[in-house]
This record gives sequence, structure tokens and C-alpha cells, in this order.
Amino acid sequence: MAEAAIDTPALLLDLNAFERNLVTMAQFADRAGVQLRPHAKTHKCAAIAEIQIEHGAVGVCVQKTEEACALAAAGIDDIFVSNQIVGAAKCKRLAELAKRVRRLAVAVDDLRGIDDLGAAVQAADSRLDVFVEIDVGQHRCGVAPGRVAVELAQAIGARPGLRFAGLQAYQGSAQHIRDPRERAGAIGAAIDLVHLTREALRDAGLPCPRVTGAGTGSFVFEAASGTFDELQVGSYVFMDADYSRNGNLPNALQFEQSLFVLTTVISRAEAHVVVDAGLKAHSTDSGLPLVVASGWRYAQASDEHGKLLADAALGAPVSLDRGAQIRLIPGHCDPTVNLHDWIVGVRNDVVESVWPIDARGALG
Amino acid sequence: MAEAAIDTPALLLDLNAFERNLVTMAQFADRAGVQLRPHAKTHKCAAIAEIQIEHGAVGVCVQKTEEACALAAAGIDDIFVSNQIVGAAKCKRLAELAKRVRRLAVAVDDLRGIDDLGAAVQAADSRLDVFVEIDVGQHRCGVAPGRVAVELAQAIGARPGLRFAGLQAYQGSAQHIRDPRERAGAIGAAIDLVHLTREALRDAGLPCPRVTGAGTGSFVFEAASGTFDELQVGSYVFMDADYSRNGNLPNALQFEQSLFVLTTVISRAEAHVVVDAGLKAHSTDSGLPLVVASGWRYAQASDEHGKLLADAALGAPVSLDRGAQIRLIPGHCDPTVNLHDWIVGVRNDVVESVWPIDARGALG
Repeated sequence: MAEAAIDTPALLLDLNAFERNLVTMAQFADRAGVQLRPHAKTHKCAAIAEIQIEHGAVGVCVQKTEEACALAAAGIDDIFVSNQIVGAAKCKRLAELAKRVRRLAVAVDDLRGIDDLGAAVQAADSRLDVFVEIDVGQHRCGVAPGRVAVELAQAIGARPGLRFAGLQAYQGSAQHIRDPRERAGAIGAAIDLVHLTREALRDAGLPCPRVTGAGTGSFVFEAASGTFDELQVGSYVFMDADYSRNGNLPNALQFEQSLFVLTTVISRAEAHVVVDAGLKAHSTDSGLPLVVASGWRYAQASDEHGKLLADAALGAPVSLDRGAQIRLIPGHCDPTVNLHDWIVGVRNDVVESVWPIDARGALG
Repeated sequence: MAEAAIDTPALLLDLNAFERNLVTMAQFADRAGVQLRPHAKTHKCAAIAEIQIEHGAVGVCVQKTEEACALAAAGIDDIFVSNQIVGAAKCKRLAELAKRVRRLAVAVDDLRGIDDLGAAVQAADSRLDVFVEIDVGQHRCGVAPGRVAVELAQAIGARPGLRFAGLQAYQGSAQHIRDPRERAGAIGAAIDLVHLTREALRDAGLPCPRVTGAGTGSFVFEAASGTFDELQVGSYVFMDADYSRNGNLPNALQFEQSLFVLTTVISRAEAHVVVDAGLKAHSTDSGLPLVVASGWRYAQASDEHGKLLADAALGAPVSLDRGAQIRLIPGHCDPTVNLHDWIVGVRNDVVESVWPIDARGALG
């Protein structure tokens, strides 16, 4: 089946670009001597997780209990929920899930979280690896680096069924700092806080089995730090319009845009055309999509429509007649993927695969 | 089951507020002598469509072929696809669907659209009602009012299996003009363009069976125009933070917020709390959600997290401890609903219903 025969709007994966991204990241991690645990919150797709593991990843991260359940049901057996799981019902689901996979881990940033998980694994007769999340500059979740983190690590160790697995240290807000030197500075500060916490753990006589973190905007720095064991990169498989606006360091790794929303021109007027992909087909939280057609700008998104204007700054506008199919580059890959039930793999304009987004809508 | 026992994040419907909104709109339409055809793109839920029909609606609108299929499969039998349907595959699905419902209608703004629909109904041996969409000021889809619209109406009438059903005239961009007098002005201009087109149809000897349009921000004006037969209001059942920023005319109808995203505090630091509802639980295209808890502002959304800051301008901050559940008012109702698989109906803090979002993700 040809790409042109796909019903739109559709989530499209350029398989050649996708596979080159996988190889680029795998080779980098290999050379840098760090392990890859890609973040599956980006793709929510067991087929892609499997391919990442075939390319050397040790497992995947997710953010939600239900994501872990969905990917485990599809056969992924080493999962780290890199987030706080709150509430008895969710802790119970996680503790039960731990019996059905090879390895399950979760993050905490509060003593009560440890109590709740401890009670749940005891009731389920299961075991969980637990990472202490430290705030390395994003000021979202995570405890202060240093002493408080050590107290949590000790509390984990004291709980039957829980094992202190190391530190979760993700500097999310640094990923999109446009200036690469500023970004390096923010990650440098994060690395210092990890160092400090590792030393505090060592002083307390606690081994730190693993430090995990990093994202597509910053992983080069974490990998070079000597402090991070594991990279949680997610977006590198797809990329998006927002990441394309990040400035790169000289000689930095380049990833290709592999994710698109395929859309059809459904109406045209003298000064604009309208496509069938709006707010429900791609997320606009990080800006409007880019148009893969010379001379056109996606100017406005409504629920089910996108309005495109000719823009001479983007080249001589190609003719976009009613019925024409074009590719859009989403502003932000993760929440865009979450809007779709499947992702259509295309190679050289021919459909090769249709993979379900197994954890689409897995919010809980 | 108590609201407090709902796993979060969850889409919540306050049934008392929802039902009052239904009654308010039904009574208004009755007094104004216009019919209601609520837009189901807002709720995508057959159960809600049925309740709207029980409250006097003549049927529903949708924007997508797949939405029509999903709602028809759940028993809704009078559906208007108020949008351009482009491509042979979609036209075929629509023509086939027409045989399975009592009434199916669609909009066109191009002669080729009429040809494609005509060929599809001929092949399927079915019938479709077709509305001509005119551009009444939004400058999105729709032909110019007047002569061009008449030509399309004539072309529809000439096609076996298609019936010219009237004019689709929706001024979407006017719905969110904050100043009510400016909004009235924009709708007044739209009404003039409908008048002009009705006259052009009359001059051509063509009856105009029905004019349909209007939204929650403007329906009072369309209803009073004497020109609109049918109101396509959607958001009034739920409302959202964006609509709450619209200024109201004196004595205008008031609708209550009935839609919420229930979320849980999963982490707290000295200066902020973090909840488990981010970009994948509510849409931020029209701004961040409002927090139903005194003194707190939703300051930042990431994929799976929301960061709340205390804000004295919003009252004395209530204590929000880890595990606390709070309601958020989404920035924009339609794309928020589309992120969820079900909507939980709550009355006086007790769960009364769980309705599937039948057309969630129905993009095609």
C-alpha cells in the first residue's frame, strides 16, 4: 500500500530515519560506556520498545502505572516507572505487576511513598527496585540532593521487598534551552548535585547501584560526566519541531525527523488552504507544526482544522490543491503520539508496518 | 463509590451542573423558536448525545466521518457532518453509513466535493443531505456568500441521491471575542452574509430548507436573527476556562462549569505542589487549567505533571498535601475530552455513571 492511500489524519513513521536514529544513539551509548533505557512515554508503543531493546537498550522507562501495565502486557519485561506513584490502588497494581515482569522499578521522593510501596509489595509478596528522585534543577518532583536523599535510600533499604536501586536525576527543563552552552551549564549544575548525593551516600556507607536520567537535549553531557550509568532519552527516535529549534554543539549527534502527521487539504480559498489535522491530531503546547511542503506555514489550529498560509520566507509555495496529502512535523512529539491509536511505518513511500500505540491514553 | 475513590487523572462530569446546562439551553431554544443540533465534537459521547436528544435536540453535528460512524454505531440516527469530507474512501464510508441511519447530512464548499459525494451515493444506492458551507467571517472553510453558494446548491440539486439541505454558516472565530459587543458585531456581519445568500437562493428559485450554525459564545445572536433555523452549540454542556473569560451581555444565559479533570497531588516541595495531570490529561491550546482549590494556580504543564504555585491573588491557599485530590477546569473542553476514554458522572460527590467517549480519537 502506498503512503498516498493512507486515510488521514494519520501518525506516520519514516522507518529509514527512525532506524538511523536508533543506530546513532546505540553507537553513541556504546562508545560512551553508558546504558540506554529509552523513555517509552514518547512512543507508548511496545513494538518500538522491542526494537530499542534489540538495539541494545536494557529496558524502558515510563511515567505511569498504566503505561507499565500496557507495555508489560505486550511483552516488555524490564520497566522503570520514573515517577512518583501515589495512592493505594496504584501501588497495589504496581506490586502485582512486579510478579509478572523480570524487573520493575519506581521512583520516590517522600517517606510515605516508601511506606505505601512497602505495604503493597508485602501484601502482594513481590519485590520492587526503588530509585530516589533528586531535584537537580527542574524544581518539579524530587527531594533535595544530599542528606534528605540519603535518608530516603536508608528507608528503602529498611523495607522488606524494596531495594534501593540508585538515583533518578532528570533535568527536564534544561532539554529545551536553545543555547547549547547555557544548556551545558544547566546540566553541569545537575551533574554536580548528583556527585554531591553520591558522596553523601558513600559517606553513609550506602552503595549507589545506578544513576539514571538525561534527555534528548542533554544526554551528551550526562554521558560524559562519569556519574550517570543510564540514559533515559526518549524524543531522539522521532524528534519534533521544538527540538529542531535547539541549537547544537559543534560535532554533536544529529537525529532526523522520523515522525509526521499525514494530512489532506480539504478546502482552499484564494489566500489559504485548510487541512484535516488540527488540535486533536497533533499537540500545539510547544508550538504549531512545520509543513513539509515548500512555501507553506501552518498558521492556525482549530479542533479539527489547520489553516495554512503561503509564506515566501519558506520558499516558493508549491501548489496545494484540494485532496493533496502533505506531511506535518508536530510541535511536540510525546503528546502528539498520545492522540493516535496506531503509527504507520513507511519506507520509500510504501507502508511497511502498522503498530498499535499500546499505552495511548494510559493516564493512571 | 465516592468521588475520592476515583483513580486519577480522570475526566469528571458534575451531573447537576450538566443537567442544568441542558435545561437552560433547551428552554432557550424553545422560547426562541429555533432547533438544537448540538455539536458532538465537544463530547464525542453517545450517552450525552442521547440525553441532548431527550432534551429536545433534533440530532447532532460531528466534524469527522469516523465520529459519525462511532455515534451511529451507538444508536444516534440523525447526524450532520458539518465539515468537508475529502477522498473517495471517506465518501464511500459516508454513503454506506447513510443507509444505516435515519438521516445523514454533510457540508461542501467545492464542486468536486459534490461530484465525489454524488458518485459515492450512486455506488452505494443511498441518499445524503448536503449543506453548502459559506464563509461568514472565519475565513477557514466555506465558499463566498451569494452567487457561488447558489451555484453549489444548484449542482447538489442536479445530482441524483443528493438533496440541497440548506446553508452551513458557522462563525467560529467570533465565539471567543472577549468583548460581548464586539462579538455581537462579528455575528451581525455573519448574519448579513446569510441573509444575502438566502436572497440569492430565492432569486434563483431555490428554496433554502435550513440555515444551521452558531456556537456557545454567540448563539443568542443567531437565534434572534430570524435567519438561523438550527443552533450547533457544543461547549455549553461542559464549559471551560477559556469560555469563562468571555464577557457576557447583560441578562445573557449563564452556563455552569460541569467538566473537570480530577487529579492527585503526587509530590510537594516548599514552594509548589505537583499533580498527576499534565499535557496528556488536558489540552493547553487555550491556556492552562484553573484549580478548584483556593489560593492555587496551575503554573506549568509538562507531559505527565502539573506544577501548582500558591497565589495570594486567588485567595488564602488551602493545604494541598501529598495524596490530595483536586478538580481542574480545563482550558479548552473539546480537545481535553478527546484525551480520555470515559467520562465519570458524579452527583454530590458520588459516582453515578461511567460513559465511554465513543468517538475518542476518531480523526478520519
